[in-house]
Parts: sequence; C-alpha cells; structure tokens
Amino acid sequence: MSQQQQSRRFVLASRPHGEPQAENFRLETVDIPQPAVGQLLLRTVYLSLDPYMRGRMSDAPSYAPPVQLGQVMVGGTLSRVQSSQHPDFKPGDWVLGYDGWQEYALSDGIGLRNLGDGLQHPTRLLGVLGMPGFTAYMGLLDIGQPQAGETLVVAAASGAVGSVVGQIAKLKGCHVVGVAGGKEKCRYVVEELGFDACIDHYSADFATQLAAACPQGIDIYFENVGGKVFDAVIPLLNTKARIPICGVIAQYNSTGLPDGPDRLPLLQGLILRKRIKMQGFIIFDDYAPHFDQFLQQMSEWVDQGKIKFREDVVEGFENIPQAFFGLLQGKNFGKLIIRVASE
Amino acid sequence: MSQQQQSRRFVLASRPHGEPQAENFRLETVDIPQPAVGQLLLRTVYLSLDPYMRGRMSDAPSYAPPVQLGQVMVGGTLSRVQSSQHPDFKPGDWVLGYDGWQEYALSDGIGLRNLGDGLQHPTRLLGVLGMPGFTAYMGLLDIGQPQAGETLVVAAASGAVGSVVGQIAKLKGCHVVGVAGGKEKCRYVVEELGFDACIDHYSADFATQLAAACPQGIDIYFENVGGKVFDAVIPLLNTKARIPICGVIAQYNSTGLPDGPDRLPLLQGLILRKRIKMQGFIIFDDYAPHFDQFLQQMSEWVDQGKIKFREDVVEGFENIPQAFFGLLQGKNFGKLIIRVASE
Repeated sequence: MSQQQQSRRFVLASRPHGEPQAENFRLETVDIPQPAVGQLLLRTVYLSLDPYMRGRMSDAPSYAPPVQLGQVMVGGTLSRVQSSQHPDFKPGDWVLGYDGWQEYALSDGIGLRNLGDGLQHPTRLLGVLGMPGFTAYMGLLDIGQPQAGETLVVAAASGAVGSVVGQIAKLKGCHVVGVAGGKEKCRYVVEELGFDACIDHYSADFATQLAAACPQGIDIYFENVGGKVFDAVIPLLNTKARIPICGVIAQYNSTGLPDGPDRLPLLQGLILRKRIKMQGFIIFDDYAPHFDQFLQQMSEWVDQGKIKFREDVVEGFENIPQAFFGLLQGKNFGKLIIRVASE
Repeated sequence: MSQQQQSRRFVLASRPHGEPQAENFRLETVDIPQPAVGQLLLRTVYLSLDPYMRGRMSDAPSYAPPVQLGQVMVGGTLSRVQSSQHPDFKPGDWVLGYDGWQEYALSDGIGLRNLGDGLQHPTRLLGVLGMPGFTAYMGLLDIGQPQAGETLVVAAASGAVGSVVGQIAKLKGCHVVGVAGGKEKCRYVVEELGFDACIDHYSADFATQLAAACPQGIDIYFENVGGKVFDAVIPLLNTKARIPICGVIAQYNSTGLPDGPDRLPLLQGLILRKRIKMQGFIIFDDYAPHFDQFLQQMSEWVDQGKIKFREDVVEGFENIPQAFFGLLQGKNFGKLIIRVASE
C-alpha cells in the first residue's frame, strides 16, 4: 500500500461578518512533514467541532487569540502516532491534542496526552469525557453548587454540554428542565436522559412553557446559549440563583448589539435585588488541575449508565465546514465529531 | 421639666415617580404610647439615612417589601430607653434598632441590640461600625477577595460604604481608585483616606481619567452606584475581575430603562470572555452571623487610625426629607445621620 504523501488542511481565508460562509475557509494540500529528532507525526482520526470556534474566527477581543488569516483552524483532535522520533510516543499510540482542521500534524509532544494503543472508546474523549463533559461538570458543581430540590435550567439540552449538566443535576436531586430545538431532541432529553421536562425553543409560547415547567422558579441557570433563552429565564430567577456562563452561542454570529431599550441596568439591578451570582469560566484556563478527578468520576458514571450521551459523527475531512455551519444552527444531534480517517 | 407628650413621625403619603418629592411624605403627630408589660419605649436620638430607602418607597419588586402607604418610613436608629417594662432594658440604655422616621417607638425587644448606658461614640454604629461599614467589609473581603497588587475601583468614595471599601483594599495592598462628585470630596479621598487616586465624575473626560488612573486595568469593581461609572468601568475590567454589587443608586429614581442599544448581551459576553464574577448581596440577609467578627476587626482598625471616616450629621427631625433628597443627589459629605434629639 503506497503511503499517503500529502495532507489536507482548512485555513482561515477571511473573517466572517455574521454567519460564517464556505468562502471563509480555504482547503490547502501540503506535503506531509517528517519528524526530526524529538518530534512525532500525528495522523488525525477524530476532530471535535465546538461552538467556541466561531469566536476564534473573529478578531474581536476574546478570551483566546484569534486564528490568524492563513492559519489552520483550531480544534481538539484524537490522533494516532504515524511516526515518531520522540521517546514518549510510538507509532500507533492514541494521542489527545489540539491539531485543528488538518489531516497530519507535527509535534514536539508538548501539550499532548498519550493514551496508549489500546483505547476502547476514543470519541468519548472529545465529548462526555473531554472538554464538553468537563465544562458541564466543573461549571455545574463548582459555580452552580446544586442542592437537592432546587430547579436547574439548561439549554442545548441534547448537546455535549447541556446533556451532561442536566444529568449530573438529576444525580444531585434537582428538578431539571432542558431547552432544545425540536420535538425529537426534546423527547430524547426527557425519555432517554431523564430530565423532568424539555421545552422546544421553536414553540411560539416558549417562555410561557418554560415558566410552567419551573413552578418553583429557577435556582441554577447554566448558560451556554444566551439570547432568547436567557430572556425567558430572567423573570423566573430565584433569590440566590447561580448562573455559570460557559458560552453564548446565540451571540456568536451577531454583528452588533440588539435594539433597545438598554437592559444592562435591569440585569444589574436584578443581580443586586435577588443576590444572584453570575460567573463566566473557560474550562481549561480555570480548572485544568481538576481534569483527572473529573475523568475518574465521569468514567464511573458513564460505565454505570448514570450519564448517557449521544455522538453525531460526520464522515470525511472535506465535510468539516458544512458540519460546523450546522453546529451553529443547532442541526447536529449530540456531540459533533468529524471522522477524518479510519482508526 | 414637663415631659413631651407627643411624637412626630414621617409616613409614606404617596409613591414617587422618579425623584422623591416632599409631598411623598406626611408629617404626623401622635400621642406617645406607653409600654405594657414586656415592652419598652424608645426615644430616637440618631436616625441613619441610606440610599436603599428609595427602594422601599416603590412597590416595584425588590429584596424587601415596600413601605405601605400610611406606614412610618423605615430606617436604622440609635435610641435610648425612655421607659421599660422589659426585664432586659432599663431607662437610659442605648439601643440599636430599626424604628425609622419617628421620635418615639414602642418595642417588645425583639431585634434590638442593647448597648448599655456608657456608649462612647454612638453614631459610629450607624456608619463605619454599622450597616455601611459591614457592607463594605463583607462585600470586599468575601466576594471581592482582594489580592496585593490588584486594582480596585469604588464609587461614592467619600461615602459611608465606598470610603471603607477603599481603605480596607489599601490595607490589603491594592492600588485603589475612588470616584466621587466634586474636587473637595476627591481631595479628601486621596489626602485623608489615602486612596491612590480619585476621579471627579462631574468631569467631562471622566472615563478617560478613570482609564488613566487604572493602567493595569480593574480587578475589583465594588458596585454601589451603577450608571455611568459602571459604563466607564466595563472596558477596563481584567480577566477574573470580581464585581460585588451592594447598590445601584444611579437607577433608584429611574422610571424606565434607558434607550438602546441593548447592552445586556454585551455584559453577558464580557462576563464569559473575561471569566468575571458578578454577585449581588444584601448585607444582613447574607452575612448576619459575621457581624460580631466584623465589629471587632473594624473597631480595632478605627482605634488604630487605619480606617478613617467622616459623618455628616444633620440636626432636627423636621429636616429628614430634605436631607434624604440631598443624599440621593450626592450632596452629603460622609455618612448621613439625623440627630433627632439630644443624647
């Protein structure tokens, strides 16, 4: 079998104004590099697609530097070592890294996690046992501090973060209400994941339905979308409510602020009157030392069937941009992963 | 000397729309009640006037029920026992209570703090050693978590809360920038209280001056005013900034939301990107068990001259409404207290 000689990659060609378009990416083909001493060559098998990538396409101030024009798009990857001149990696090892939208990547080993060659369920490390699961776990437990009997609301409830947030909250004895897009997702969230209710945000009377599903108000709103879900949550917040914020996907494509009135003073006054805590977090920046503890606990829950998850695996490197556009529109159903190549 | 037979009181006559007016209060004169068995009669000596009272005049949802029409306006008081049929109180005892805008009050003793008859500095218990000082202390230390070398900004810096916030932050090694109204207050804040800088919010280039005084950005913004000070603070906030919110006096007279654009999404996005913590608190609801520890520490600091304070004592019961209007306009200079009667 002749070895593949070339590697494809998507680079950022231009910055989007509003919704990203195909023209914002450029597909390039380059020669596969060869590792020097101390280096290894990684072959991407799975690429994680996540909403935060939209932020990296813009040069507006954010929590991480933007992808530069002409640079490979970023992203978490599960790869196998193709060849190695690094003492800690041997061909065939699974490696968790951050190589982005490309088929092959050279590395000096820094920042990689070597998972050995016997990995049973690799994709889980990009979802329920990876960044999204870790985000759900720390944001809910450390900032949200759920207590039995409290009411939790989380949007994107069938997604990689929301599904785990709600299930952990159920394990902690909360009344859990999800928000998702469409009947099928809502059915899954209630029947498969065990949420107490799930409201379809496409419903015309969405806010009324949410209020009805939260008769005791809302004690924890895990914020991963913003926009109209937060608008509907605001009047339902209880005294001492906690709002961990890990994302505001509803804002990512916005090109300016919405029309008035200016509700900033309203939010500020509400935080005071109801003694609310709102806190943003960036998972690996804030909680990296807790990862191993998370992995152990979450693996146990998954093995016991206490935390269920769903993956939406799209085949083919060339389909990355379309899958990413769909993610921003909520078209995926479960953690979105690209299978770039065979295991 | 003939004993006074009648007691004056201000009751809420109507609810204000915007800025409170004299007509919102009604001065009444009633017979002084006599204590039954288990009761005591209190003679108000000092009344504390505080911005939160504006909230109690409205029937909009708030953290405490509004004063009802026809009811005596609320407020913290330092009184002396006039006569007593209660075993724990004897005539002449100083009592810290919540009798509001009236000269005499009957009590069954519940909720009162008996301070004995040898009180040296009674007014301090309404200011630096009372609710405002306690608010500054807990909000800064528990929510703000100041670290040496960080930058803190606080508005109303010559006032009862702001002055204490800034001085404690200095004790903790922070770079401390105050905001106050007018040159005289700013001079006092820097020269007497030892803040590193104080910006006059009446200056046309206020936001520019604030930015210049915070070359390392802002790590803690202790929010007690809202409005244009917060607007100027927003672009200066550092990653991991903390914003305890104890009040938003700039909003108290507003009759509706300001014109757009709607900056609520902007604030939410900022909290995420910069991993900011915003948290409201109501001092006695959230921290009552810490009061004795506060009182001990703060008394020590005051006795050592490490915390300075200023009181603005207005003479005469009849002057309460005018003094209160002035408070909402920032006309007082230091903790505003009414001397209702001689000690």
